[in-house]
Amino acid sequence: MSQILYRKIRECLTLEGVKTKKGVRPQEADLSIIKNAAIVVQKGRIEWVGPERALPKKLLEKSCREIILDSQSVLPGFVECHTHTVFAGHRADEFELRNQGATYQEVAQKGGGILSTMKKTRLASEAELFSLAQRRANRFLEQGVTRLEVKSGYGLDLKSELKSLKVAQKIRGPQVTTTFLGAHAKPPEFKTYGDYLDYLVREVLPKVKSQKLSSRVDIFIEKGFFEASDSERYLRRAKDLGFEITIHADQLSLSGGARIASELRALSADHVIKVTALEILMMKEAGVIAVLLPAADLYLRCDYPPARQLIDQGVRVALATDFNPGSSPTQDLSLVGLLARLEMKMTLPEVIAAYTHNAALALGLEDEGTLTLGSRANFFSTDLEWRELFYSIGQKMPSQIFINGRRVKNA
Amino acid sequence: MSQILYRKIRECLTLEGVKTKKGVRPQEADLSIIKNAAIVVQKGRIEWVGPERALPKKLLEKSCREIILDSQSVLPGFVECHTHTVFAGHRADEFELRNQGATYQEVAQKGGGILSTMKKTRLASEAELFSLAQRRANRFLEQGVTRLEVKSGYGLDLKSELKSLKVAQKIRGPQVTTTFLGAHAKPPEFKTYGDYLDYLVREVLPKVKSQKLSSRVDIFIEKGFFEASDSERYLRRAKDLGFEITIHADQLSLSGGARIASELRALSADHVIKVTALEILMMKEAGVIAVLLPAADLYLRCDYPPARQLIDQGVRVALATDFNPGSSPTQDLSLVGLLARLEMKMTLPEVIAAYTHNAALALGLEDEGTLTLGSRANFFSTDLEWRELFYSIGQKMPSQIFINGRRVKNA
Repeated sequence: MSQILYRKIRECLTLEGVKTKKGVRPQEADLSIIKNAAIVVQKGRIEWVGPERALPKKLLEKSCREIILDSQSVLPGFVECHTHTVFAGHRADEFELRNQGATYQEVAQKGGGILSTMKKTRLASEAELFSLAQRRANRFLEQGVTRLEVKSGYGLDLKSELKSLKVAQKIRGPQVTTTFLGAHAKPPEFKTYGDYLDYLVREVLPKVKSQKLSSRVDIFIEKGFFEASDSERYLRRAKDLGFEITIHADQLSLSGGARIASELRALSADHVIKVTALEILMMKEAGVIAVLLPAADLYLRCDYPPARQLIDQGVRVALATDFNPGSSPTQDLSLVGLLARLEMKMTLPEVIAAYTHNAALALGLEDEGTLTLGSRANFFSTDLEWRELFYSIGQKMPSQIFINGRRVKNA
Repeated sequence: MSQILYRKIRECLTLEGVKTKKGVRPQEADLSIIKNAAIVVQKGRIEWVGPERALPKKLLEKSCREIILDSQSVLPGFVECHTHTVFAGHRADEFELRNQGATYQEVAQKGGGILSTMKKTRLASEAELFSLAQRRANRFLEQGVTRLEVKSGYGLDLKSELKSLKVAQKIRGPQVTTTFLGAHAKPPEFKTYGDYLDYLVREVLPKVKSQKLSSRVDIFIEKGFFEASDSERYLRRAKDLGFEITIHADQLSLSGGARIASELRALSADHVIKVTALEILMMKEAGVIAVLLPAADLYLRCDYPPARQLIDQGVRVALATDFNPGSSPTQDLSLVGLLARLEMKMTLPEVIAAYTHNAALALGLEDEGTLTLGSRANFFSTDLEWRELFYSIGQKMPSQIFINGRRVKNA
């Protein structure tokens, strides 16, 4: 099949405007909505998109398969750019405890939290982990997620971290971007955070690199966990090895994460709840994307990040679930977008841009999350008009999903 | 098929304890969890339930069909006791407006709000309305809802209110309890709220009664809308006609709803955000159930109701979505239960009781929401352990659903 023509699309959101107007608050016009649209895909890429009446004759003449998307809206597939999809077990009991008053840090100090998931993840076989991860990936896919970021970070030793990244790479359905988050927590085998980071640099990062398990490194920078100075040294060494950087930044306190992200030209600084005008300015200057994770803020009952200031000051904002068994045990994109509108006062076009092209850019993927010439043909169609998206929590958004132009799921 | 035996159940939550300990804060023991259980159903009712090893021989000897629910947890079906499932259109644009700062009351005064849905609902044919409502009912069913309350209240005239109730009665899937909510808002044809209530008593209530469209009457008591004195008179007349009472009470301000509910021995007072210790005491003495609707509180960004005080003072608490296109455009039970735990500090057993037996009692159905001798055999089975419920927003809870003992949906 050399060419596919998608026809009779009620409205197609190409997000071209968002692509070219970096940092500008997206208005409806920036979604670049084409009414009565058609799309031509060749070799998994957008060959042409526009109003169907303007479809060039030479494209029509080529032998091609037609897919009719009558009365459907078409959007770029969602890019879920911050998840911890590979883990064993759950932490439902811990959630009940937290609701009785224990804090996230207290739970961690009691040997719960990340380390309890680490124990289960280390014990799980690769096959068990994969089965769990694939089921979760399917759940993302059916919501229209065509690109899924997956972090390691529940292994916390060489063997289990490599196992987690291998499992992530095996996932089918959404296309996967892996991130090495060995620096998620300090495992009990190490006395200091610095010692553990040295171990990661010495023993683990080179293998992640040589086995091509990930090209991205993340770290949990928070006071009392990985502190700024250790973290900065670690990230510089990772950068020297050729890794892209993303940082868990300033969620629980102003801990230096966004500052370091800016100084090291990280792709993204994630959470950024406690940032001030200074960090916002630094992020803007450095082109660091702010990945906001409001479902975690809901679960942790902490403040929401200053989305309006970030956007209004020119920082590009992406959204994600932060799906993990502790602080954000939800895979629900409709919840994330709803919270962004309701609690962070993002406009609906901003939410859509944040979950498509801005999220793709947070993963360094210029050619995803838009439907413009040359973009990867990852998109979904829906009976809903775009104005109805991210309004009803739990609403099923896509009716058909396409990755590289091929239908992957009939919902 | 005279008799069905359900076997090899990992754990069965019968909620017998909740039934007998009215008003007592449910502990885990109150869920009455039976390990390695079996259930026998005869003519749609629970004939026997207990540990499988204790199954009486005479029951085994009868010819009966066996259903193996290996490694499954079984719970009473969820009872969704407060919804506005019959309406046309959506109000997604209004949601964006509200996020830009307009209040619920301001939107209503601008002719938006309930009246905009009224216009679309009046125009819709019975067939159109039914198609929309049935699709929504299916969405509830797949979440394990075996009993669904559906209010009218977007017709606001004789013809359209009767049409809405007829549509509700036609719904298949979950069993439906209809509620007449003509007193939802004042339609433009009437000058005063009092005049409209007189019309409802004179023209509409008798027809609702004679056509057996509902045995329940609800009213939206809020300052500036249906005020306490008018409302009380209306409800007394409805009661004289033989209707059961439920009240939208004290959501936006302390408006007399919970007080009137207590004085008139209503089945439930719903929302009850602004109640004080006095109303809580009155509700307890009158046995009025508090139906809490935290999804609406999230969408409206208002306070959550004082669930802990209500429960600790001995008021029985139920939970529901309040699904409607304005203040709670979500059908997601997992969200409601999560918010009850997170924001209202209800324990997980309390949430489960609130969504099963307490919700059934709010509808006057003593024999639903439990799995005890004589109960209606409405239940679902799930791979999850009960401790994992209401933890992950958007998580699919049931795997198989049974109504009157018959499997209605394979998920």
